[in-house]
Amino acid sequence: MSEASFFTDMLQSITDRGRQLLFSGSRATQVAAKADLQTLCETLLSSRGEASGMALAAEILDRWGALESEGAQAFLDMLHEKFGPDTAKLDQAIENYRTDKSSAAIIALHQAAEPRRQELLRRLNHAPNGTAKLVRMREQLLASKDQSAGYHALDADFTHLFGSWFNRGFLTLRPIDWSTPAYILEKIIKYEAVHEIAGWEELRSRLAPADRRCFAFFHPRLADEPLVFVEVALTRSVPRAIGDVLVEGREQINADEATTAVFYSISNCQDGLRGISFGNFLIKQVVEDLRRDLPGLKNFVTLSPVPGFARWLAKARASATDRFLSETARETLMLLDDPNWPDNEKMATEVERVLLPLAARYFLTERTPEGRPVDPVARFHLGNGARLERLNFLGDRSTKAMQQAHGLMVNYLYKLDDIVANHEALAQRGEVIASPAVKSLLNQNDEGRGSGNGQQGSRPFANIMNSTLGGGRK
Amino acid sequence: MSEASFFTDMLQSITDRGRQLLFSGSRATQVAAKADLQTLCETLLSSRGEASGMALAAEILDRWGALESEGAQAFLDMLHEKFGPDTAKLDQAIENYRTDKSSAAIIALHQAAEPRRQELLRRLNHAPNGTAKLVRMREQLLASKDQSAGYHALDADFTHLFGSWFNRGFLTLRPIDWSTPAYILEKIIKYEAVHEIAGWEELRSRLAPADRRCFAFFHPRLADEPLVFVEVALTRSVPRAIGDVLVEGREQINADEATTAVFYSISNCQDGLRGISFGNFLIKQVVEDLRRDLPGLKNFVTLSPVPGFARWLAKARASATDRFLSETARETLMLLDDPNWPDNEKMATEVERVLLPLAARYFLTERTPEGRPVDPVARFHLGNGARLERLNFLGDRSTKAMQQAHGLMVNYLYKLDDIVANHEALAQRGEVIASPAVKSLLNQNDEGRGSGNGQQGSRPFANIMNSTLGGGRK
Amino acid sequence: MSEASFFTDMLQSITDRGRQLLFSGSRATQVAAKADLQTLCETLLSSRGEASGMALAAEILDRWGALESEGAQAFLDMLHEKFGPDTAKLDQAIENYRTDKSSAAIIALHQAAEPRRQELLRRLNHAPNGTAKLVRMREQLLASKDQSAGYHALDADFTHLFGSWFNRGFLTLRPIDWSTPAYILEKIIKYEAVHEIAGWEELRSRLAPADRRCFAFFHPRLADEPLVFVEVALTRSVPRAIGDVLVEGREQINADEATTAVFYSISNCQDGLRGISFGNFLIKQVVEDLRRDLPGLKNFVTLSPVPGFARWLAKARASATDRFLSETARETLMLLDDPNWPDNEKMATEVERVLLPLAARYFLTERTPEGRPVDPVARFHLGNGARLERLNFLGDRSTKAMQQAHGLMVNYLYKLDDIVANHEALAQRGEVIASPAVKSLLNQNDEGRGSGNGQQGSRPFANIMNSTLGGGRK
Amino acid sequence: MSEASFFTDMLQSITDRGRQLLFSGSRATQVAAKADLQTLCETLLSSRGEASGMALAAEILDRWGALESEGAQAFLDMLHEKFGPDTAKLDQAIENYRTDKSSAAIIALHQAAEPRRQELLRRLNHAPNGTAKLVRMREQLLASKDQSAGYHALDADFTHLFGSWFNRGFLTLRPIDWSTPAYILEKIIKYEAVHEIAGWEELRSRLAPADRRCFAFFHPRLADEPLVFVEVALTRSVPRAIGDVLVEGREQINADEATTAVFYSISNCQDGLRGISFGNFLIKQVVEDLRRDLPGLKNFVTLSPVPGFARWLAKARASATDRFLSETARETLMLLDDPNWPDNEKMATEVERVLLPLAARYFLTERTPEGRPVDPVARFHLGNGARLERLNFLGDRSTKAMQQAHGLMVNYLYKLDDIVANHEALAQRGEVIASPAVKSLLNQNDEGRGSGNGQQGSRPFANIMNSTLGGGRK
Repeated sequence: MSEASFFTDMLQSITDRGRQLLFSGSRATQVAAKADLQTLCETLLSSRGEASGMALAAEILDRWGALESEGAQAFLDMLHEKFGPDTAKLDQAIENYRTDKSSAAIIALHQAAEPRRQELLRRLNHAPNGTAKLVRMREQLLASKDQSAGYHALDADFTHLFGSWFNRGFLTLRPIDWSTPAYILEKIIKYEAVHEIAGWEELRSRLAPADRRCFAFFHPRLADEPLVFVEVALTRSVPRAIGDVLVEGREQINADEATTAVFYSISNCQDGLRGISFGNFLIKQVVEDLRRDLPGLKNFVTLSPVPGFARWLAKARASATDRFLSETARETLMLLDDPNWPDNEKMATEVERVLLPLAARYFLTERTPEGRPVDPVARFHLGNGARLERLNFLGDRSTKAMQQAHGLMVNYLYKLDDIVANHEALAQRGEVIASPAVKSLLNQNDEGRGSGNGQQGSRPFANIMNSTLGGGRK
Repeated sequence: MSEASFFTDMLQSITDRGRQLLFSGSRATQVAAKADLQTLCETLLSSRGEASGMALAAEILDRWGALESEGAQAFLDMLHEKFGPDTAKLDQAIENYRTDKSSAAIIALHQAAEPRRQELLRRLNHAPNGTAKLVRMREQLLASKDQSAGYHALDADFTHLFGSWFNRGFLTLRPIDWSTPAYILEKIIKYEAVHEIAGWEELRSRLAPADRRCFAFFHPRLADEPLVFVEVALTRSVPRAIGDVLVEGREQINADEATTAVFYSISNCQDGLRGISFGNFLIKQVVEDLRRDLPGLKNFVTLSPVPGFARWLAKARASATDRFLSETARETLMLLDDPNWPDNEKMATEVERVLLPLAARYFLTERTPEGRPVDPVARFHLGNGARLERLNFLGDRSTKAMQQAHGLMVNYLYKLDDIVANHEALAQRGEVIASPAVKSLLNQNDEGRGSGNGQQGSRPFANIMNSTLGGGRK
Repeated sequence: MSEASFFTDMLQSITDRGRQLLFSGSRATQVAAKADLQTLCETLLSSRGEASGMALAAEILDRWGALESEGAQAFLDMLHEKFGPDTAKLDQAIENYRTDKSSAAIIALHQAAEPRRQELLRRLNHAPNGTAKLVRMREQLLASKDQSAGYHALDADFTHLFGSWFNRGFLTLRPIDWSTPAYILEKIIKYEAVHEIAGWEELRSRLAPADRRCFAFFHPRLADEPLVFVEVALTRSVPRAIGDVLVEGREQINADEATTAVFYSISNCQDGLRGISFGNFLIKQVVEDLRRDLPGLKNFVTLSPVPGFARWLAKARASATDRFLSETARETLMLLDDPNWPDNEKMATEVERVLLPLAARYFLTERTPEGRPVDPVARFHLGNGARLERLNFLGDRSTKAMQQAHGLMVNYLYKLDDIVANHEALAQRGEVIASPAVKSLLNQNDEGRGSGNGQQGSRPFANIMNSTLGGGRK
Repeated sequence: MSEASFFTDMLQSITDRGRQLLFSGSRATQVAAKADLQTLCETLLSSRGEASGMALAAEILDRWGALESEGAQAFLDMLHEKFGPDTAKLDQAIENYRTDKSSAAIIALHQAAEPRRQELLRRLNHAPNGTAKLVRMREQLLASKDQSAGYHALDADFTHLFGSWFNRGFLTLRPIDWSTPAYILEKIIKYEAVHEIAGWEELRSRLAPADRRCFAFFHPRLADEPLVFVEVALTRSVPRAIGDVLVEGREQINADEATTAVFYSISNCQDGLRGISFGNFLIKQVVEDLRRDLPGLKNFVTLSPVPGFARWLAKARASATDRFLSETARETLMLLDDPNWPDNEKMATEVERVLLPLAARYFLTERTPEGRPVDPVARFHLGNGARLERLNFLGDRSTKAMQQAHGLMVNYLYKLDDIVANHEALAQRGEVIASPAVKSLLNQNDEGRGSGNGQQGSRPFANIMNSTLGGGRK
């Protein structure tokens, strides 16, 4: 920490000297002081001196930071329009290449085809806190991107550079617990995105007990800013509902009594790093870490939300022609429109019978145009090599979960020996790996038979314990 | 440290699982086990699974590490010849671009022009200890490069990637002292490249005294391997000879009595990172650090070797037409051929009178074809914004220094307020900034007058102390 | 931390083995299992084996920890009555000494006169967490002591041993700030004894701002338990009221702009260590620390409560014969019985005129039977060598402060160059060192003249700044 | 470390201020400046001010530190003669006690019987670096003690205070390895007392390999000074000779392949702490530590010297009447007088046959007047609860070992489950616990039969592995 801040101080000091040189004295620099941002960016791109370059980068980012939303939008437009590749140079490079296909010509061509803003962003990154500021710049970009298809090229450059700067080799995993500095902890409260943390007391209940763990990734240039974190409950069985995990007054156990580690909340902290994936790596590293510390752990599962389910179901219901949705099912699903259905046992049972087979279909057979699972959380865990293990009817009755998924939660199972194969199955063949219990639900779609019982009857985790996982470890 | 090694362990573990998958069981993988390195590299480039990718990367680097020198050469050749850009794809991308100059087409063109080995190296970097192994691979490349001009394109790719991975934002500065772990200290002994350290006792004499400092840069992916380090002596005057700094039994002072910090040895530790510059940054950071800790410090100077001087002088003497070398000078310089000249006061005085003006010319007016100073150490310090402050006749009588520079040493002065301007002067106008005393030596070339006295008469550092630096700080 | 807990683990492990030996198998040990606490204590005192001793100690402390309040009282009684000196042995030692006044005889006499419980407590201290448990035991003792004068001898033994175990050489000072582990911070909230901290947000406002500091003493055997802590505000003037320090939305300053460090809250955390003084040491160490870090600091003052003032004043008013309390004063003081007096400007002014001279008398001339200042906070700071600098009328309007001190607060001034002399003045001559402004108030007792104005007119801290402290530092 | 040094700085600063007060200005203090050490000590004992007390303590210790050996002796004499108990006060306290046997009277008596130097030493301990200086003072005392029986009382006071200050609760165990700061490592070289370390390279060979460990105890008031350290080799069998452990080029193993931890060197570092035992604790803690980290470890043994054996044997040989030494044995032992005996196989075999039974007798039946084992190393390990496991003929052929023990080494076995019982057996019943193999040697004393074979025939460690230790751990 002190090293990081020392470093920042030092950069600041060199930068300040450069800036002094830049904006004092001579006529030329007085021009610079008045120059607009585009001119400064051009100057930065053409500058050869390192210190003046850092000063320019700092000046540009400071001015950018002071822009109102309109100005910020204009800045992005400028990056997009004025700092693409130099097409004249590119055309020339193409000509050269066509006459002389040497490797030097290819290098020149490659460089000419690179958008100029890539180098510009690299140089801006040298400013004090440059990385953090560029992450915020991309946050703005993503917020605007939806409206402006033209930003795709611009975002490609950010993505390319961030992918390199946030290379997972630079990430450090740190446990977050009740001995963590308070200024980190307050960010955990702020960034928790799945199950809200109401305050310090609730935070304490998630970090301090012997059967709770939390881990976060940090990056050297964003010191003290967690990038992503995961909350873990150590239990003796695989929970079906988030209430079992978070309820006040629950019975605590010793860590070495636990057989199961439940990843019940994973939150990305930096919007500007969306798509720069480290969450998958986080889970695997945490699994390794826990296994080493607690050899008694046999199951590594999530208790996850299904954020896209309700929307998908609504669309299916709205489509008159959805071939999988029988008339009976459609009728039953009308129960969902009565807000009291979860509390009415009869209604809930009816809903469950129809909802679970549909959920199985949602996970197992539905695909995005690119052939990937439609649920974003499923994409993440299945893409990591997890297996879809169990569907938990009414696992989360919070307003948000009822709206997004009619209360549905699921468990994904991380079994280290299978992760690679599962991941490859999805990556190479597009196949979603699921437990037999979940798969069997799929067939019930057609038959319209009760599924909840069927799944419970198969006691999926009894299987896991006795054969699969138990046998997996000698 | 433990974090780094934990991380390596974890990578290893995931990798092992991937490798198991890769090389066990199926027919396909048995093929892989027998595949040659080129096939494995192609497979790595086309693989989509992360874990199997890491396993492949590890396998390739392990096999590469086991190659004899001939095989290693062949591997480099393969990278050079088989993993350049995909020219068919490139030609196609050019065609597409010519019909549709969209930004998408440019991105595609840019990607097609990128040598395929860049992505290959990126993926190899994900293997456990990948970075360290690629640094060693480039070390081999540089050793071969002299013979093979064709490696330039290959080295360009290494340089590009290393420049990004060893971005100075990732470097951490650590003091090296007598409380540093022994396994770091033994590397300081090993890597010291300027004034050899004979053993632990001598190392102690450079680190433990209150008037000595040492600092090194480290990188998170090369934990415990210093990249570059600098040794500093805290003194009350600017030393003229390395003996004054390193002599046994010298009088030690308290750090807060010192007015001057002398950078007397800077060593790069990793041959494979040649040209990826951080030394300049190291010095500036150390200057900032020392200033803060020891406000009594007013002068920041080096005591530096002049490794190219003797060779340059020999060439001048060998050229019958060198217009600056008068007959008298040539005659005097013949004294250099008598190995006893330094110990003979009369001979030494004669030599000094002629040598110092020539040295001034060597620094101030000679240039490489690219217009840079000819001395490599001068290029480094002047490029950093230092000023050439003083020439020290017979500053180092070691065999190496007598051979390289007829014993000449020089002081470069780092004055923070001038660094930016000095650097820009050289970068933009090619001008070497030197003290008046050194500049005045230049004129003595023609006149053949005694120069040593002249320089001493001007008492350059008295000036520095009283006016320049003293006035620079309130 | 981990070291401490490792150590505890290890002690636990050795202890467990000893306990196994102790309470398993043989007939003798089965007796032990049933033995009462007194028998176990006797066994511990006579045991020679180290491991069995530790096991016994742990057993005794565990059983003691499970006692209800009545049993705990009985345990203290037992220590008091049964583990005093062995009088038979003492009488014998006296006889021996009278016949042979050798040093061996004196050593024997010394040992015989030592209460047996001293050795017993030393051996109990070897149990895991022994120290913490004995601190709690003394907490109980102190709670009972008021009722039982007989415990004085017992408490003398605790005091003697704690004085040795909590020797200040073992204390470590740690800054408490917003980067401190949360499990320490929650203890700061809990232990704050002067100005209550309502929750984490308020804690943050006392620790995180750049112009706030907090420091605590820790002890290696009570890891993670602060012993005493002090909260500091960095300001540009000496505050007259706690509201100026703690008000929400106050203007924050940079630490290096501050001229004054205000110690506004000092809390002892361990009741069981009452009378084992380290608070004085804490303040001096913090002053040294702050001076070094922030050379701009010139004044080190407290803003302190006056907890004994209202009681003392009530007694004086109740006494018909108090010679210093004039009839007019008595009448004015009746205003205090109207709860609205502080908000009524006229009433407040009247009260101030009378109250401040009385407060001056309370501090300067009143003494306990032992000749010490009557106010406990005054005893602490004046005993440390501070000077009574200023009386602040209505400095704290909280209910507690109105009840204890009619809202009065005071500033004590810590001037390092005077600390020794001030301390010695009080220790040797019983003299309270106070500012001229406070002393001048004393004379106003008789005259009945307005005092508040007088004090303000003399602008005591202007003096401090310009002459005393300013001049004290070259 | 920095905390410790900060603390020292701070003490120094307060002390300096006190000293200023003490020795400046007034007439009284000028007297002090000239006062002799005894007067200063009396002043310190009677002083009430804390700061002036610290200044006095520092002054006394500084003056003491400057004394030549004669003066230092005189200082000890003074402590001994002038600072015993105040006998007048003691006599008075006895009188009071005889008339009133109250607890207050006993406390007074206890205090009066305490040598005044105990409080003097406590106060000297408050000086900066006071503890370290008092440790050196006792070192001098022990060096003189042999000549002066009168110092026993004085040493009793040091022992009592050191026992409290160096309470094992304050000791911290730190691993010493190749990542340890160099300034600690150089002390390991210096303090190694059993098998000399010739330099840094040899140190490296003892610390860096994966099958080597070293641990030391440190104390907060003697920061950076190891108190005692132990060197450990991890092996696959119990070594018979130190050469097997330390030989250059030996085969290294991975730590997790090891079954046996060999404590082959234990060195106390501070002569002044002689008799303040922590070595026993060190071994037990290290055993616990290693067991936890390396579950594969089954045997914990020493490879120890037998420093008193040769002297004891010489005495036996010199005594014409030693009943156990048969004529034949005496004759055989004359071979020891031929320096070539170890290299002559026939002579060595003869010697072994006689020497080992005598060694068994030396360990098992010989006792000091206090009933303890005669060998000091045996006293240490057996007192710790170890078992005498094996005698290793010619285990160490170094000059020192040949002189002290005719090359004999022994293994002591630490088996955690037996430590308590073994320790108690020796402490309570004076019984030395040894392996059957060693015990059986004892009988061979009479018979004069070959013993080496007998011992080897019983393969003691095969037993340990298969039954005792192996069975001890499930």
